[in-house]
Amino acid sequence: MSQNTREDTVLSAIEDRRELVNDAIDEELPMDEPERLYEASRYLLEAGGKRLRPTVSLLVAEALADVEPRSEDYQAFPALDHGVVDVMAAAVSIEVIQSFTLIHDDIMDDDDLRRGVPAVHREYDTETAILAGDTLYSKAFEIMLRTDAAPESSLDAIELLAQTCTRICEGQALDVDFETRADVDVDAYLDMVERKTAVLYGAAASVPAIVMGADDDVVDALYQYGVNVGRAFQIQDDVLDLTVPSEQLGKQRGSDLVEGKQTVITVHARDNGVDVDSLVDATDPENVTDDEIDAAVATLEEAGSIDYARDLAEELVAEGKAELEVLPDNEARYLLEEIAHYLIERGY
Amino acid sequence: MSQNTREDTVLSAIEDRRELVNDAIDEELPMDEPERLYEASRYLLEAGGKRLRPTVSLLVAEALADVEPRSEDYQAFPALDHGVVDVMAAAVSIEVIQSFTLIHDDIMDDDDLRRGVPAVHREYDTETAILAGDTLYSKAFEIMLRTDAAPESSLDAIELLAQTCTRICEGQALDVDFETRADVDVDAYLDMVERKTAVLYGAAASVPAIVMGADDDVVDALYQYGVNVGRAFQIQDDVLDLTVPSEQLGKQRGSDLVEGKQTVITVHARDNGVDVDSLVDATDPENVTDDEIDAAVATLEEAGSIDYARDLAEELVAEGKAELEVLPDNEARYLLEEIAHYLIERGY
Repeated sequence: MSQNTREDTVLSAIEDRRELVNDAIDEELPMDEPERLYEASRYLLEAGGKRLRPTVSLLVAEALADVEPRSEDYQAFPALDHGVVDVMAAAVSIEVIQSFTLIHDDIMDDDDLRRGVPAVHREYDTETAILAGDTLYSKAFEIMLRTDAAPESSLDAIELLAQTCTRICEGQALDVDFETRADVDVDAYLDMVERKTAVLYGAAASVPAIVMGADDDVVDALYQYGVNVGRAFQIQDDVLDLTVPSEQLGKQRGSDLVEGKQTVITVHARDNGVDVDSLVDATDPENVTDDEIDAAVATLEEAGSIDYARDLAEELVAEGKAELEVLPDNEARYLLEEIAHYLIERGY
Repeated sequence: MSQNTREDTVLSAIEDRRELVNDAIDEELPMDEPERLYEASRYLLEAGGKRLRPTVSLLVAEALADVEPRSEDYQAFPALDHGVVDVMAAAVSIEVIQSFTLIHDDIMDDDDLRRGVPAVHREYDTETAILAGDTLYSKAFEIMLRTDAAPESSLDAIELLAQTCTRICEGQALDVDFETRADVDVDAYLDMVERKTAVLYGAAASVPAIVMGADDDVVDALYQYGVNVGRAFQIQDDVLDLTVPSEQLGKQRGSDLVEGKQTVITVHARDNGVDVDSLVDATDPENVTDDEIDAAVATLEEAGSIDYARDLAEELVAEGKAELEVLPDNEARYLLEEIAHYLIERGY
């Protein structure tokens, strides 16, 4: 399938669900007192975002139940054993966790912008941003308790959520640590990416199966699907940062190099004898020229590091897709396969 | 009973359980990778603390089960219906939440010291302290899942934990907000204290009852006991700040006044026509003299504000004690009564 058709397919699958997801976020996380705290907590969620993780959750539910996409009420969705569950609550809970981690990450990285608007600690202040993240954290658990799943399944969903949050914190700590280390190998880097980014995709893909009462092997396979596409997604981000023109990227091409950030590409290059720290002058980020970036990219290409990253992302997507064989062969599963491809084929 | 005997009784009840609580914290929150993150997460817990909340939890379990204090294994404790539950895990979960909130509060208030050691953001850095708090947050949920309670009870415990965390965030947000407001009345102030401080006592007192399978009315009464003694505890803190000499207090007497912090005393005084903001010159905190503090305290005493706070704390303790009538009349219940008194009779 051509990239454009694939992108259209995926974007319209997301588009078809976004308004419902946004309505559910409003419902599950209403304004409350103190007003400023709840405004700050909702600020980033209201600023937009693709809702990719909730879309994955909702598609998994539809694939598992083997129903026509968008034919069932997500908030009273047919479970596998009996009765109905609120798979939308599970999807929203994951998105709320995502929002909490972004708010706290932006404080830690002192980033000014997120989704085209000021980061929460810039729009409000650091104290409020810490508290807004902390509020979303507990709210995500409150929301995950509202799926109406069987008690044992609810507990499994809560456990997955808690373990996922722990892994994300570990991943962020490793990421911060790696910035000052030159001895990070590819395995260590990929382990960091798995914790920081991929496990939340794993949770998004498996939690609807848990609340619907699916067997453990189905839950595990869906988790692996999510983790693999999540890792591929991050690796592709590293590739795009070097290969997409600044105008299209919405930020400076090569910003990871300029900021001295490790990526799977620089880690691979260093493993293969490239003096990564001399590629661009990261001590003078303002004056790095496009020519320097071009030369750096050429060096990384020569070392095979960009191809390595591309191949790795493709491999992970293939592995992720293979996990979907636990699902019935239907339209929703097809869309989950397309999403996996889209994550590494998207232009930016 | 004389204050000293009461204090001895309470302190030895705490002392009798502290080592077991500390061992359980070590067990439930072991060192892990990345090392620096887990060191930072454990740093404040290892720095000490009375373990007052876990002690309340363990005593409630003993009172409810109507067993001799310290006669049963807290990690395989007789539940009310059948089987055994790990009430220690519930107690540790609450203590871990307390630690998370202190770490984040110290960042927000930019406090340098906690429990006689540097605050986590001073010993490490702000990024690590945010992450350490976030890690403890999810760990507390993981630990609360390990009580072996009946699934429905486990879910109730998780829900209480999540709602409690939300309330604490709201309370902290109100506290920060109140610092710049002159229109806070006593009810609003007490509402803030309830959310910021008292609900965690409520959770500590009621969560063992939940995991042991107690009836709702028992759970509710124990929650109210905790909330009332928690509110009394905070009010007494406000009284002590004004009435105990600096040497004994371990910080400057009147520090709340000097820092322009609202307390139930200043809020009451303002309600009664005292020009609270002129009591001491908070714009020049370095040069506030003991004489100025003495004069301020005299003014607050004259307005009846210190007596008002004392009376209120006593009233709350009496109300809290009354809630304990849902428990069998035994030694552990007696100790819970003594703890309530101790909280407002302690000298510092």
